[in-house]
Amino acid sequence: MRQYNIAVLGATGAVGREMLKILEEYHIPVGRLLPLASSRSAGSTVPFKGEAIRVEAAGKDSFAGMDFVLGAVKSPMARDFAPAIVDSGAVFIDNSSAFRMDPEVPLVVPEINGADARSNNGIIANPNCSTIITAVAIGGIAALSPIESMVACTYQAVSGAGQGGLVELEEQMAALARGEAVRPKVFPTQIAMNVIPFIGAFTPNDYTDEEMKLQNEGRKILHLPELKVTCTCVRVPVMRSHSIAVTLRTKRKISVAEACEAIRAFPGCRLVEDCQGRNYPTPLDTSGQDLVWVGRVREDLTDENGLALWCCGDQIRKGAAANAVQILQYLIS
Amino acid sequence: MRQYNIAVLGATGAVGREMLKILEEYHIPVGRLLPLASSRSAGSTVPFKGEAIRVEAAGKDSFAGMDFVLGAVKSPMARDFAPAIVDSGAVFIDNSSAFRMDPEVPLVVPEINGADARSNNGIIANPNCSTIITAVAIGGIAALSPIESMVACTYQAVSGAGQGGLVELEEQMAALARGEAVRPKVFPTQIAMNVIPFIGAFTPNDYTDEEMKLQNEGRKILHLPELKVTCTCVRVPVMRSHSIAVTLRTKRKISVAEACEAIRAFPGCRLVEDCQGRNYPTPLDTSGQDLVWVGRVREDLTDENGLALWCCGDQIRKGAAANAVQILQYLIS
Repeated sequence: MRQYNIAVLGATGAVGREMLKILEEYHIPVGRLLPLASSRSAGSTVPFKGEAIRVEAAGKDSFAGMDFVLGAVKSPMARDFAPAIVDSGAVFIDNSSAFRMDPEVPLVVPEINGADARSNNGIIANPNCSTIITAVAIGGIAALSPIESMVACTYQAVSGAGQGGLVELEEQMAALARGEAVRPKVFPTQIAMNVIPFIGAFTPNDYTDEEMKLQNEGRKILHLPELKVTCTCVRVPVMRSHSIAVTLRTKRKISVAEACEAIRAFPGCRLVEDCQGRNYPTPLDTSGQDLVWVGRVREDLTDENGLALWCCGDQIRKGAAANAVQILQYLIS
Repeated sequence: MRQYNIAVLGATGAVGREMLKILEEYHIPVGRLLPLASSRSAGSTVPFKGEAIRVEAAGKDSFAGMDFVLGAVKSPMARDFAPAIVDSGAVFIDNSSAFRMDPEVPLVVPEINGADARSNNGIIANPNCSTIITAVAIGGIAALSPIESMVACTYQAVSGAGQGGLVELEEQMAALARGEAVRPKVFPTQIAMNVIPFIGAFTPNDYTDEEMKLQNEGRKILHLPELKVTCTCVRVPVMRSHSIAVTLRTKRKISVAEACEAIRAFPGCRLVEDCQGRNYPTPLDTSGQDLVWVGRVREDLTDENGLALWCCGDQIRKGAAANAVQILQYLIS
């Protein structure tokens, strides 16, 4: 069996560490594993298949001999390293937003448009976390009839802000338990015992860039260039699973029964019919696994052709690391 | 100045206690104050104007001489006591859902339909908490052009489940801080570090009764019998303020500027333009006060005549106790 040399760029962050776990869990045939990070983290180790692998400082010459580079760094660094990765002959599967809307770069959720990944020029983009989870949840319905529009409200975990977000929620909870004041650093205000209706940065239409991703990236992934999405992105004090309440309008009317059947049959999805006596998922239920759980499927009372549903998925896994490894898995299969 | 004898039925619960505070804060001219509760709580005291007032056991003969009875008990008890209250000649301002949809009973948010309160037959209903907060937030827009439909996703505080909900979140947070397991009692599953997309009980159309209140009660309060609402009610680990992400469609197109002007001018509302450097409210900002704070007003990208907004309000105050006292204040003004 062929083996693949795989580098993880940003191997010490929340997403990078999860990529290493998932490469192992999925039994990806890894030849050499190369964990890369900033010079600050170089020399530390990360666990892989029972060994402690030394983290190396990422440089433009780090990628020689690699087949794949999984990117778990922010956009500026992804942009900075991409040419060197492509020149080295490796395929760069990038979790940042740097190349997602580049028409030359496929933007891939394997269950939906895996085939797009094959026509890459060395870079494949991993979509935004909420977009991946929503796309998988509605993928089965979209295959029955094109989705024309969508109203989505998110309940996003702090892991979306990386390791710093996870630490901030834990620190704030501990401070509150001790009766101490909370000092926000990563988030614009207190997130423990609060919700924050603002993620990312404002764009000229008063939506945030995070909110516009569901429309912009959704159009590209679902091959629905006319898709209209109104999104409200809200941070909630949950560690690592995002939830999204979706109301959508399809071209032809889809019944609740038909929609449930499509969700049940869709790869990467679990239709929640019984979960500890509940028929709806919560973010805690979906933490630490890769399926998107969907429940609360019902008719939209405002639109004859509308449906409403609720979905949850692990932000670090299916929303980031697992989707990237699944793209790699698709390409080597 | 005329003084009014006022009983609070359920004076020891989260909403009842707040009613006492608000009667005092609003300088309601109270003659006799009569705190009533179950026989279990009788004999304890509640604070009012610097005194400790003895709580009496509620009975059918408790209401003689009262001008108003503020109800802060659940529906079955409200139904049980209502005839005795009406027979006594007092006006019953009831916070339960028992009489809200009764065509003989006005359902009142004073900023919107205060005048409806005047034509009562002894009972006036206080609406559901999320409905009050949403109605105040959209009241100014509705006055410009009728609202035809609405998609609402809620982020509801644990106080909506009463004192038990507040205690449960605090206990779960403390248990997690000690590394102990969480045992849900009030909520169907863990609420600390989680969100739960289910409040109330299922109805035949797969919406919960809590979700249907926004359409049913909204129609009555806003005098919009055709209003269509798709609602998803979600419990979040926040103590006492509800937030609602609203997307609405008006009969004629309302610009964002026009909507903001209407919200700014609407009584009971605060348009959030600057709140500690943010131009959006969070539930923590609105705890312990009576205004509904509105922000994130923007065009709905899915509908030419649509608008999206975000609002927060204190569930125990404007969502329950303050609205009830404001109805009383309206009637005596």
